[in-house]
Amino acid sequence: VQESELSLEATEKGGYRHFMLKEIYEQTRVLTETWQGRLGDDGPLAAAIGPQAEALLAEVESVHIVACGTSYHAGCVARYWIESRARIPCNVELASEFRYRSPVVPKNCLFVTLSQSGETADTLAALRYAKALPSGAGYLATLAICNKPETSLTRESDLILMTRAGPEIGVASTKAFTTQLVCLAMLSGMLARPNASAVHVAQALQSMGSAIEAVLALDDTIAELAEAFVDKHHALFLGRGPMYPIAMEGALKLKEISYLHAEAYAAGELKHGPLALVDDDMPVVAIAPTDDWLEKVKSNLQEVRARGGRLFVFADENSGLKSGEGLTVIDMPHIAEAIAPIAYTVPLQLLAYHVAVAKGTDVDQPRNLAKSVTVE
Amino acid sequence: VQESELSLEATEKGGYRHFMLKEIYEQTRVLTETWQGRLGDDGPLAAAIGPQAEALLAEVESVHIVACGTSYHAGCVARYWIESRARIPCNVELASEFRYRSPVVPKNCLFVTLSQSGETADTLAALRYAKALPSGAGYLATLAICNKPETSLTRESDLILMTRAGPEIGVASTKAFTTQLVCLAMLSGMLARPNASAVHVAQALQSMGSAIEAVLALDDTIAELAEAFVDKHHALFLGRGPMYPIAMEGALKLKEISYLHAEAYAAGELKHGPLALVDDDMPVVAIAPTDDWLEKVKSNLQEVRARGGRLFVFADENSGLKSGEGLTVIDMPHIAEAIAPIAYTVPLQLLAYHVAVAKGTDVDQPRNLAKSVTVE
Repeated sequence: VQESELSLEATEKGGYRHFMLKEIYEQTRVLTETWQGRLGDDGPLAAAIGPQAEALLAEVESVHIVACGTSYHAGCVARYWIESRARIPCNVELASEFRYRSPVVPKNCLFVTLSQSGETADTLAALRYAKALPSGAGYLATLAICNKPETSLTRESDLILMTRAGPEIGVASTKAFTTQLVCLAMLSGMLARPNASAVHVAQALQSMGSAIEAVLALDDTIAELAEAFVDKHHALFLGRGPMYPIAMEGALKLKEISYLHAEAYAAGELKHGPLALVDDDMPVVAIAPTDDWLEKVKSNLQEVRARGGRLFVFADENSGLKSGEGLTVIDMPHIAEAIAPIAYTVPLQLLAYHVAVAKGTDVDQPRNLAKSVTVE
Repeated sequence: VQESELSLEATEKGGYRHFMLKEIYEQTRVLTETWQGRLGDDGPLAAAIGPQAEALLAEVESVHIVACGTSYHAGCVARYWIESRARIPCNVELASEFRYRSPVVPKNCLFVTLSQSGETADTLAALRYAKALPSGAGYLATLAICNKPETSLTRESDLILMTRAGPEIGVASTKAFTTQLVCLAMLSGMLARPNASAVHVAQALQSMGSAIEAVLALDDTIAELAEAFVDKHHALFLGRGPMYPIAMEGALKLKEISYLHAEAYAAGELKHGPLALVDDDMPVVAIAPTDDWLEKVKSNLQEVRARGGRLFVFADENSGLKSGEGLTVIDMPHIAEAIAPIAYTVPLQLLAYHVAVAKGTDVDQPRNLAKSVTVE
């Protein structure tokens, strides 16, 4: 009996050594499935959320996003997207903070929750708090972005946008996070319509599958690079703009499964404190795609090098950055700006995975953590 | 000549071993000086900001706070205060992020900058960006909360609220931070007037001096406690609500001058990742005054203890928490809730100071850092 169970497990892992690796590779497919049938010529279709969604989204004047952990990081990326594309104010808050502070609700505000399991205790409590606000002081509507159907979160929300990641077994979330980002990119486009950025989002999402495939081709390079982290106890992750929450997510993965104390900083904050920590025992990982921030990130990176820090930079192949003494540049394929935060997540997932494997930790079941945090 | 310089320096330190320690102790006086002459019977006086401020503040419908480093942490506390007391939405953002993302400006929004030096490059650039927005899409007015007079920041802002901390020599900010908090508490009261919370703030501020004196009496206790951190490389700081940014500030102090990799988390987020890091090599510092969050913090603390983590809790003397195996409770004097974040900052400053002294680092001039970050 035991043998057949093992072989069943092996089948479920589809030949991969761990569920986490399988789920990282599945992103090529599930990210595409998440946008399929939900894009029109002039942008993502509000109908994906429900038949009444288009009229309702047209009324939205601000957005509050509430989530925990990895889902919170997805929300932080969405804030950049929603404000820049739809030009409406967007706030993102930890569910455990939101529910205890009697926040102020602006007029016509959409309340968005993010949860893979749909049962995250703090997120669910925040939704119930939001729905219980007296009429006139409450939200316009509630939208759940969720991976599991028929959950408390989806049952109790007015609107639902499913992530279509399929079952996620690894405790450290991978494909659930990136499919949340696809949903949030679509939401930003729905709120932005009709404008050019909605069209850009829809076009960029259609290149998602091939972009992820190109990034996954870097797997062996990243496995080699992981060796530089195995004997370290710390790491710093830097990003700017929408890549700052991606740095947060990269640091969290390394924490969760490799037990390295990794911390993320907005690159511009380096000089306001964390630079004191940088020495040859603390590798620094920076995400520097070609965008408005690249020049600034470059100047931050020089400070780290000048202080003996070992630097690893994930940069667009056209960035002009070259490896050198103390600096390893990992050339990423060119990715459309609208989906770059999604694609740049993948090498950070692989990095955490390979460090964990090299350290011999339990990748799929890290110590102290549960898959769904259903207690407060 | 050298000798007289040394003795001049000794005089300037007023008998203290380091400027940082002197500046920590000065808080008893400068926090009081910061509110003096600025409080009325029904709350903080808008006139402290300028003759036209009262009419202008009455128009404010939302607040954006922009700052870097320690000042950013002060802004994060203010968000809780402004939303709960004045019931208007408040956003806080890192200056280096704000200035590059074309943020959306709500109607009648007050733009607040915080900077000890008044010359912080990113904060100044954010102010200039805010002032250059086209009329109709811009801010109602700009307010600088600053410690130095005649700076670029104060010259270019519509309104000024001075912190009165006096010269701060130690690179790691102490009294500049807590006096910023006094100013922000006053601002929240000005925006809340006329309501009961404005009166509470004014009353609580008047107990500031004696509260800080009572906290400073814990200096020897904290010096002893610091020994548990000297041979560690990591630490976790936990807080909830307005104490979460205070945990962030406590972690930053330890980073800056003791080179310990300390990181802060909202206590409720512990289960969503960082708990994987907790073992007997990572002390956990929690701030748990008597407030609505105490019961929740207690349940988080049990998780840390259950996983072998050594816990240090700064708690109100009436909290009911008692030291035990793996748990050290530092009884804080009872502090009025409206000023508790200010008073709870002081033991964390002392902790960072004593760890740095025990490790023999250069307390007043930590490696890699400058007092004013006047470059981007």
